[in-house]
Amino acid sequence: MSQLQRLSDRIISRVNANLQEFEFDTEPFVNNALDHEKMLDFYAFYGITSRHPLYFHFTNSNIAGSYFLGKCHVRRSAIYKSDVRGDELKRKGDCIKSAKNIPLVEDEMISILDSLLYKTLVHSNSHNPESPEAFIIRNTISSHYANIHGSTLEGCFLGPFATVDLMNLHSCIVGEFSYVQVGELFHRKIDPGTVWIKSPHFEFKYKFKKSILDNFVGVNDTYQPRGVIYDFVRTRDQEFERLFEVMHLEPFEAPDSSAINRYAVIKGKTRIGENVLVAQRSLLENATMGDGSNAQENSYVIDSVLEGNCITAHGGKIINADVGQECFVGFNSFLNGGPDARIKIGEGCIVMPHTIINPSMPIEIPNEHLIWGYIESPEDLATQTISLDKLAEVRESVTIGQMTFSGKGSVFIHVFKDRLKHILLANGALYNDGEDRGHAQDDQNISFNIIQPYRTGARKGLYPSIRIKP
Amino acid sequence: MSQLQRLSDRIISRVNANLQEFEFDTEPFVNNALDHEKMLDFYAFYGITSRHPLYFHFTNSNIAGSYFLGKCHVRRSAIYKSDVRGDELKRKGDCIKSAKNIPLVEDEMISILDSLLYKTLVHSNSHNPESPEAFIIRNTISSHYANIHGSTLEGCFLGPFATVDLMNLHSCIVGEFSYVQVGELFHRKIDPGTVWIKSPHFEFKYKFKKSILDNFVGVNDTYQPRGVIYDFVRTRDQEFERLFEVMHLEPFEAPDSSAINRYAVIKGKTRIGENVLVAQRSLLENATMGDGSNAQENSYVIDSVLEGNCITAHGGKIINADVGQECFVGFNSFLNGGPDARIKIGEGCIVMPHTIINPSMPIEIPNEHLIWGYIESPEDLATQTISLDKLAEVRESVTIGQMTFSGKGSVFIHVFKDRLKHILLANGALYNDGEDRGHAQDDQNISFNIIQPYRTGARKGLYPSIRIKP
Repeated sequence: MSQLQRLSDRIISRVNANLQEFEFDTEPFVNNALDHEKMLDFYAFYGITSRHPLYFHFTNSNIAGSYFLGKCHVRRSAIYKSDVRGDELKRKGDCIKSAKNIPLVEDEMISILDSLLYKTLVHSNSHNPESPEAFIIRNTISSHYANIHGSTLEGCFLGPFATVDLMNLHSCIVGEFSYVQVGELFHRKIDPGTVWIKSPHFEFKYKFKKSILDNFVGVNDTYQPRGVIYDFVRTRDQEFERLFEVMHLEPFEAPDSSAINRYAVIKGKTRIGENVLVAQRSLLENATMGDGSNAQENSYVIDSVLEGNCITAHGGKIINADVGQECFVGFNSFLNGGPDARIKIGEGCIVMPHTIINPSMPIEIPNEHLIWGYIESPEDLATQTISLDKLAEVRESVTIGQMTFSGKGSVFIHVFKDRLKHILLANGALYNDGEDRGHAQDDQNISFNIIQPYRTGARKGLYPSIRIKP
Repeated sequence: MSQLQRLSDRIISRVNANLQEFEFDTEPFVNNALDHEKMLDFYAFYGITSRHPLYFHFTNSNIAGSYFLGKCHVRRSAIYKSDVRGDELKRKGDCIKSAKNIPLVEDEMISILDSLLYKTLVHSNSHNPESPEAFIIRNTISSHYANIHGSTLEGCFLGPFATVDLMNLHSCIVGEFSYVQVGELFHRKIDPGTVWIKSPHFEFKYKFKKSILDNFVGVNDTYQPRGVIYDFVRTRDQEFERLFEVMHLEPFEAPDSSAINRYAVIKGKTRIGENVLVAQRSLLENATMGDGSNAQENSYVIDSVLEGNCITAHGGKIINADVGQECFVGFNSFLNGGPDARIKIGEGCIVMPHTIINPSMPIEIPNEHLIWGYIESPEDLATQTISLDKLAEVRESVTIGQMTFSGKGSVFIHVFKDRLKHILLANGALYNDGEDRGHAQDDQNISFNIIQPYRTGARKGLYPSIRIKP
């Protein structure tokens, strides 16, 4: 048996053991996802800069297409076409938000063991006070375009386009296109299309209707994705291929304070302002990126204008839209406007993660609104948006359409705006006069290094063991 | 001071200490060779196969452009655009030729320390019985297109296009375009253009006239090369650039038993026979490679026909020539025929390393001849060739033109032909029915991995520490 097959089998058996109570068998998914011959067509790469803590260690792994930045320890994993960004890893002496007086005794490190991450983004703004030095993903299978954001996981299965955000999961199944940010979860199954945020002070919950979800993100028997959003991504896949075919690319012209990643696609009449971050595997076409705006990994900004300090979170898709100052477009949101159905979003709006706007006529959302769910026409705004002022007045709970919010609205808004400020800061949007550097400034000089797997022999498809230090 | 500058300074001071007796200062050479800004334009690469013993370890090094295959340990070195081929490294239990009953206690490993190898080829068919497990090059500066072939060196300076072959050198200077294969050398300075082979049984010596050498390979004050051969190589440099610009290349069509390295340039009407090896950084244009022939690293075969089992050693250049069966064209030989001045070399000829044939009219060398020195016209053949039959009759010594041979001619021919057979075998020329695999069969499935230096910070131009194991 090839060692790559042995790796698949080990991942299957470990994750299945964790998910036994759900009678969930990961074998069909893994065997469909890991096409062994195809693995030889890919190469993995990792980024090196003088500003990120360097330590990579890969052993008995298939790390095809991966992008690593910052300390990472991968053992017996298949990290197929993932981006593992360790650029917010904490250093020795730093404290994490939830445990301010316990400084880290050594640099934080990402550790991924017996896992399969399939086109999954892992981003490392971690928060788990139990293991501040280790960002662990163990025995976890994460399928197409899922996001693991600052989360510790063990023995989980994440469906396509699922997001787990700033939390810990143990032996959980997260359905396709679900977003969870609920602190900690044990032995839970999250239904597909659930958007759930829970803190000690408030809770936000929304669930997509099955018929709508099925149209946008569905899965087949083996948990392979289908639907409008998957098709949107898949048909643009080849745009990225040419970036991987050449070694050196003429960089796209941008101000000195902005970073356009070498693995981003930039097309048409695109304009980049100051302090802009365009991350790897993002696609911009006829896009105007205002000062301090960003397009994070796997995001798309097409025929659209983003005013200043807008955030396009990982996997956000903005098409034929005008987005006002300081808007947030959350994870995997799909703002699918058309030439005759433009989407206008006012200043200071918060588009919740996993929101779908798919209008057949122009649509306009006023300033300072919270937006969620599924919007097809102006009529839907009544049940899928609320002004922040009104939300701030909520003391106990409010139910609007399929959405239920409980807790203090003002606290929710305060926490959210706080986080947005942190995101802008981390991404370099507030860089001024040498102060407040962020990714837009620090990610300009990345050296990309390439690793290929064994082409023959028992290790065919696996990568050699590599350890990289400064 | 940058760490790259510190690396240069260390190399200079160590090599200068070794060469003090010659009052030789390497500083001007090193400072000219290591253009720190240019170092950022390059990337290094190394090859991985399932058939070569894998262990790389680079620390505090600049390894731009290097190509490694097989176990290699590099520490505080600048290996700029070198090919370090460890594909004939011995394994634990193997014996070396000069010590048949002392098997290696562990796998042989290349170790390079405090050295600067500038576009130098290191090839690992080693033979030093004192350190069979370590192929060491320590405190050595080797300039443009020099060849280190199976040699252990310490504190040496090799000039451009110099070759040291199957021997040990300690604190030596080898002049430009000199070839030495003399077992062991201590504290010696070899004049430019010396071709010197010495064994217990025979000695071959030839020295180029200064006026001729100056025209073909000269050096300036800082030991940077100039001349016809350097110009020939330099003007073809850009042909290789496109190979480094793309990730995947359509492979050139060749029989299954032959290997065309992905970093070789193949142009025009080129035909590849069975069991042919075309190594990295070789260039073929309108070339016919007969069954079992090879074009080794840095060799050129242009508008030429090589019949079966011909060897083009490292750096050999064959232009407008017809080379008969089982000919050997030695290191750095320059067979510079023209459309109206074709060079015809008969079967079984031995073109000695560092031979220059530069005719203005057609020239023909009969079968089974030894060829050396500088040939411009048919008249020169009388003083620069001898038939192997005649050479075999020599018992004591013979002087022909500038060449002196002493010892038994028959032994010399026997040893030489034996080595050629070994070279054919190692390169896979004799592969048949699954038996006698060599490089032509084993080098077909190389994964090329790419490393880039730090682009900013104190380590700018240096590479991270990397350790790669199976």
